[in-house]
Formats: sequence, C-alpha cells, structure tokens
Amino acid sequence: MSSAIDPAKLRALKSWVDVPAGSDFPIQNIPFGIFSANGRAPRPCTRIGDTVVDLHVLCEAGLLTGTDIASEAFQSETLNALIKHGKPAVRRLRERLMDLLSTGNTGMQDQAGLVGRALIPVQDATLHLPVEVGDYTDFYSSREHATNVGIMFRGPENALMPNWLHLPVGYHGRASSIVASGTAIRRPMGQMRPDPQQPPVFGPSKQLDIELETAFITFEGKPLGERITTAEAEDRIFGMVLFNDWSARDIQSWEYVPLGPFLGKNFGSSMSPWVVTLEALEPLRIAGPAQDPEPLPYLRTQGMHSFDIALEAALIPDNGTENVICRTNFKHLYWTMPQQLAHHTVNGCNVRAGDVMASGTISGSSPDSFGSLLELTWRGTKPLKLADGTERKFLHDGDTVVIRGHGQRDGLRIGFGEVRGKILPAG
Amino acid sequence: MSSAIDPAKLRALKSWVDVPAGSDFPIQNIPFGIFSANGRAPRPCTRIGDTVVDLHVLCEAGLLTGTDIASEAFQSETLNALIKHGKPAVRRLRERLMDLLSTGNTGMQDQAGLVGRALIPVQDATLHLPVEVGDYTDFYSSREHATNVGIMFRGPENALMPNWLHLPVGYHGRASSIVASGTAIRRPMGQMRPDPQQPPVFGPSKQLDIELETAFITFEGKPLGERITTAEAEDRIFGMVLFNDWSARDIQSWEYVPLGPFLGKNFGSSMSPWVVTLEALEPLRIAGPAQDPEPLPYLRTQGMHSFDIALEAALIPDNGTENVICRTNFKHLYWTMPQQLAHHTVNGCNVRAGDVMASGTISGSSPDSFGSLLELTWRGTKPLKLADGTERKFLHDGDTVVIRGHGQRDGLRIGFGEVRGKILPAG
Repeated sequence: MSSAIDPAKLRALKSWVDVPAGSDFPIQNIPFGIFSANGRAPRPCTRIGDTVVDLHVLCEAGLLTGTDIASEAFQSETLNALIKHGKPAVRRLRERLMDLLSTGNTGMQDQAGLVGRALIPVQDATLHLPVEVGDYTDFYSSREHATNVGIMFRGPENALMPNWLHLPVGYHGRASSIVASGTAIRRPMGQMRPDPQQPPVFGPSKQLDIELETAFITFEGKPLGERITTAEAEDRIFGMVLFNDWSARDIQSWEYVPLGPFLGKNFGSSMSPWVVTLEALEPLRIAGPAQDPEPLPYLRTQGMHSFDIALEAALIPDNGTENVICRTNFKHLYWTMPQQLAHHTVNGCNVRAGDVMASGTISGSSPDSFGSLLELTWRGTKPLKLADGTERKFLHDGDTVVIRGHGQRDGLRIGFGEVRGKILPAG
Repeated sequence: MSSAIDPAKLRALKSWVDVPAGSDFPIQNIPFGIFSANGRAPRPCTRIGDTVVDLHVLCEAGLLTGTDIASEAFQSETLNALIKHGKPAVRRLRERLMDLLSTGNTGMQDQAGLVGRALIPVQDATLHLPVEVGDYTDFYSSREHATNVGIMFRGPENALMPNWLHLPVGYHGRASSIVASGTAIRRPMGQMRPDPQQPPVFGPSKQLDIELETAFITFEGKPLGERITTAEAEDRIFGMVLFNDWSARDIQSWEYVPLGPFLGKNFGSSMSPWVVTLEALEPLRIAGPAQDPEPLPYLRTQGMHSFDIALEAALIPDNGTENVICRTNFKHLYWTMPQQLAHHTVNGCNVRAGDVMASGTISGSSPDSFGSLLELTWRGTKPLKLADGTERKFLHDGDTVVIRGHGQRDGLRIGFGEVRGKILPAG
C-alpha cells in the first residue's frame, strides 16, 4: 500500500488550528496517542501543533463515519482496539482527520461548541502509554553500537559476533515495565560482581545508563505458524515511537551469560506518547546502509526502507540546565524494520496488535553520536563534562534524560516530540 | 498464609462425584481451568475425577456467595479476572468448592437440575489456555541441566557459568506463542549454521527438541519499583502447571550469543490446562537441595519451598505406541519459586496477575532423568531407541510429546494431568 496523497499537495496542506513554527506536529503528521483531561478516563487522540484532538468527541459528532472504525475504539484507554482494525482503516481515519483539520474544511471548524470540546491545549492534557504492550522485543540493529560494545567487552578482533551480519539479533524484553514518558525511574537494586576475585554483592546499580532507541508498534500479524515476509512487513507496522531502554550495566554484565539481559533492563523502559505512522514518515524515507554479505533471501528487500530521523539525547541534572549528550540518526541502523519483522516471524512466531519492537541503541560513527553513556564515556573511562561543571560516567540520582526525534525534508518537519524520565534514588 | 485445613481431615475428605482410583484430581486438588462445551464461550471451571465443574453455573445458583469474587470473573474467557482477586479470595473459593463437592454436603448434590448443568464429563469439554499471559519468564534453575548443557557446549571445566550458583538465571520469553495443551506445533523454519566454515543456511530446524518444565502463575504483584521478598513470594503465587518449552537447537545455537534464545524458542510453548494451587500442593512440600555458597540475603528463605512432584515425558511416534523417555522430579531444582520471584522483582520489576514463570528444563542426575532430547541423546550422539525400532536424536514430524506430573504422600495423589503437543511438518 502506498500513500494516496501527492507529495507536493501534501506539503502545501495547512490547518485552521495554529501550528507553531518548528513544531513536530504539523497537519502532515497526525500521530495517535492516549490522553486524559478534566478528570475523564483516558482515550484516543491525535495532536496538531500544541493541541490535542479528542477522537471520541469527533466520533460522537458523526465526523468519523465511513472510516469503518467501531465507536468503542474511541472510548478505549489504549490504542489497541483502534489498531486492531488494521492499516487500511487506520489510514482512512488519519486521512479523515487531515481533511477535518485542513484550512477550508468547514466540517468541524464552523461548529464552535464542537471545537471547544474536541480541542484541548496539550499542556492541559495528561499523555499516557499509547498501547497495552502484548510482547516487547528489543533488537540490536546498530552496527556501530554492537561494534563499540564488542570492542569494550571482547577487544577489536572479535567485536562483532559471527551471527551479527547475517541476522537482526534480538531478544525478548519485559512488557509490564514499559512506562509512559514522564514516569520517574527508580534506580534498581540488584546483584553485581564488581570485583571478579570477590563474591557478588547486592546494592543499588552504580552504572545506570540510557539506550537511545526507536520502536515500532505492530498491527495484528498472522496466526501462529505463518510468517510475514519483508514485502508484507510495512503493512503490519502501525507506526514508530521514541524509546529509552534504561540499562543497569553492572547488573547486566554479571547476569547476562548465557541467556541474555534480564534484571539489568526490566526495571523500566520509557516510551514517547505519540505513535507517528509510517504514512507520516513517508517524506523521510531513504535507503538503509548497504548490506554485505547479502542477507539470506528471506531477509532481502526491494526499495528503500530506512528513514532520515535526527535523534538526540539530553541530560538535565537536578535543577540544572540541559546538556545534549548525543546526536545520532535512525538511518544509521543496519537492519531495517521489515527485516526485523520478517526475521521475528520466519519461524511462525505470531505478532499481535500493540506489540513493540525496539531498534536497539542507535549509534553513529562519531563519538558524539553514540546512543548510550557506556559508549559515550567508553565504559566510564572518558567522563562527560556537563555545563554545570560536574561529570558523568553513568546517571546520577535526580538526572533527567530526554530523547527527541524529528525529520525534515523540503521544509516539511515531522517529529515525535520527546520521551523523558527522571532517576529516583534506589529505595 | 497457611492452609486452614488439618492434614488428617484433608486426607479423609471424599466427594459425592466419582473419582477413579489413581486420578490426579481428587477432592483435595480442586485446580482451576478454562473450558468450553456445547458451543458456549469458554469460562472458568474446576475438575474432580473425570468431571469438569462449571463455576459460572455454581455462581448463578448462588452457591459462591461470600467468597467475595465478582460474578463477572466466572464469565471470563481466562482466569485473569478471578486471580486478580488475590490469594485470600481464591483460597475461599477453593475451600467452598471442596465443601460443595464433599460427601455429606447437600448444598449442590441434592439439586438434580443444577448438578446436570454444572457437571460435564471431561471428554465432552474443550480445555483452553487457563490465563492470558502478560509476561512470560523462563528460568534455568536445574543445576543438572545447566551442567549438562555446559559440558556439551564448553567442556566439563567451565560447565556452570560463574553466576549460576549465585542467582537464578532467567530470561524473558514470548507470551503470544504460549498455547494450550493439544495445540499442534509446526516445525520452525529458520537460519542456522550447521557448518561454521560455511555461510549460514535457511530451512526447517533439524534439531527440534522438548524441554520438560513446570511453571508458576502469579497473582497481582506490587507496583513498579517495589520488590517481593522471598517471605512474601508464596502469597503472590496462584499455582503451577506443566510446561513444554519446545526448542529448535540449531536455530538457538546460531542466534543466542550474546542476547539469549529468541527464534529457537518463540515458535511455541505448551501449557497444561489445570492450574494446581500451592494449597493443593501443600502435602507434597519438601526442602529443596542445599545451596552452597549460601545465597545473598535477598535470596535466603526460611522453611521448605520445594515440592515432591514426579514428572515424566513420553514420545509417541505417528500412529505408534508410547515411549516414556524421561522420569524426573521437580524437587531436583536448585532454585525455588520464592527465590525466583524475589530475584525477578528485586530491581523493582512489576509482576501482574497471570504472568508465567517457568522453571527451565528439569533434569535429575541419572541419564534417564534428563528433561530434553539434547541431554537424553547427548547432542544426538546417543540416539534413543523407541519401541517401534526407530531411533530419535531429535523430534520427527508426526511425533507427539506428552509431559505428566503428580505427587503422592500418605495415599493422597495430587496431579496436573498432562500437556501434549504433536509436531507438524514445516510449512
């Protein structure tokens, strides 16, 4: 399925709702999220500029008929019921919303009462986790990140594992502890072995880190036992979010052999509130890196399947000012989303509406483009100097981390907003 | 919380419902499950002997009042709504059911119409997955299994990893592909590298295996950021099931470094239909193996926390006869369920009602007590000879595997029934 809207016409679209210059959310975005306001239960919305648009109100006003989406989906506390309708219906809904919000369309803007009920300033809304996550998978698809970690832990000769260039390595994460942006993260306690000559110890993690990632959220997949091909994969992807895969390196390094990361990760992962659809990202589409060796046939793709999305991470000490500590880009990822989804299902593993598949840490090739403190400080050997004169090897209590992302082409900006979290002391 | 029923009195209990000799389901068991019959939607039940008892019918007849369980829980297609009520309420419900089914109790047995509606021969019922699994964790808690695998892959000197005796190693598995007993399992396709000197290949797994496991199902845990101690853990455990963690060894061995098993496992895992409560297992309680070195304080326990549960796996070739290929026991596990749950939450990871935590393969010390074909055939070097004259290194298409489990003490038998699955050809 390709987008129905002509690119030049798309760029020219304007809304009767105010969109500040440089907003991540012009009328060409129309992401989906879950909000609550005025004490009401959470429900689906979109966002334009700094305004949240209540989809339940639009549905009740009869403005969403013909999209074939059941009205119950607009009263649900997660987007799962909406995305269970699949890509064609969600695309119709998004195009209807673009229509209704377009300059010149009077279907909505002439009804003052309706506009008053449906539009809420974003600062008056609470934004929630957009989906109830069925299963969460984390990939490891940045060659630069995997290489950096490999050099630190195994030396430059064996930096990349033998399987890495042949398949998108991934593992299962914990769904229950994925939290909405803004949720504070408690520094985890755990078992570590800082001195390999001494017994392990128990205490608060001293190597609390971020992982700058994106994630995609799936539509309903296929039944158990059937695979999704790379050609079919984008039709099963609803959209993307920003993702911070908080990591306790000292817990992780002691526990992870041979079955992978566990308590070093599952104390919390943060997700941005707005799911930006693949349709909205279309203007940012580019080719991914060349792949050598050529992957096995089930992992090959036709066309371009990466996106030019600038990403940054900022660290804000308690009551301090912001320090951008990393600038990277989604386009650095070696394995694309269609390859990840095709690999994940090639053995018949079933995927459900609302599953989350994260990219793994996204690092570029320059030292200021590394997506984790582990890499930015090279395992703590090169502490970061912050604006307030303090240093960071890993996160301090009270630190806030913000990850942002957006792309820009021909004057059109499509963005994600941010995902944010503050570190609370271990308790 | 300890069971309210005196052991001698418990053993003497009898039911007015027929219980065949040697049944896993005497009145002292009263497990919970989900069944459907006569074209109706699935709903909660218990089982006594070879009879399913419809809890919705008992609730409608007013026989479950005072248990404080909302009637909607008895109309749900999974047990999640029931177990969200927590251990005290579920315990009251189970004791009420024992009362109603006891010889001499006329509350139910005198109402012929009610008995006709509430009791269904098990052969007329379809049994479903008992819970909607939120998150699934698989531990690796059998010392014998971890040692066997370690010897095969790394040699006897480094068989157990340095962390193994210090913490219950575990990893996250895939919740979506956990299926009910009886669901056929399709042989997975995938990427493998049988010859390390040649590039990887794609095709059907040639090393399809079982893992004989048990799993426990949780009540609601604590909020994100709070831990469950070993002393609190059993109050958060609803009950146990049998579990077959089907594994494709050739896919697994190529993919699993460094982030753990993924496509080698997530094509399907099978769960037995009856959740046997910890209260029912009380007569089988024994001490676990001595632990040396002594675990860190957060992993220490008081009292006995293992159970004497005999387990066996049988292989049935297509149209063939049964071969018991393994006899082992839950009591061999080094790490106990309270230790597993306390470890899982020590970093603040939250647990929800209906989460599944599996034991890992349960192997004993003798070669006929190993819980996987990998160990039973020592990586295919010692094929099993079956009654029909054929050999097995790994599973063939058409093979059915059945895992059974029960315990016995002082003439009282408490069991799980079975979990069963048949291998379909790759497709």
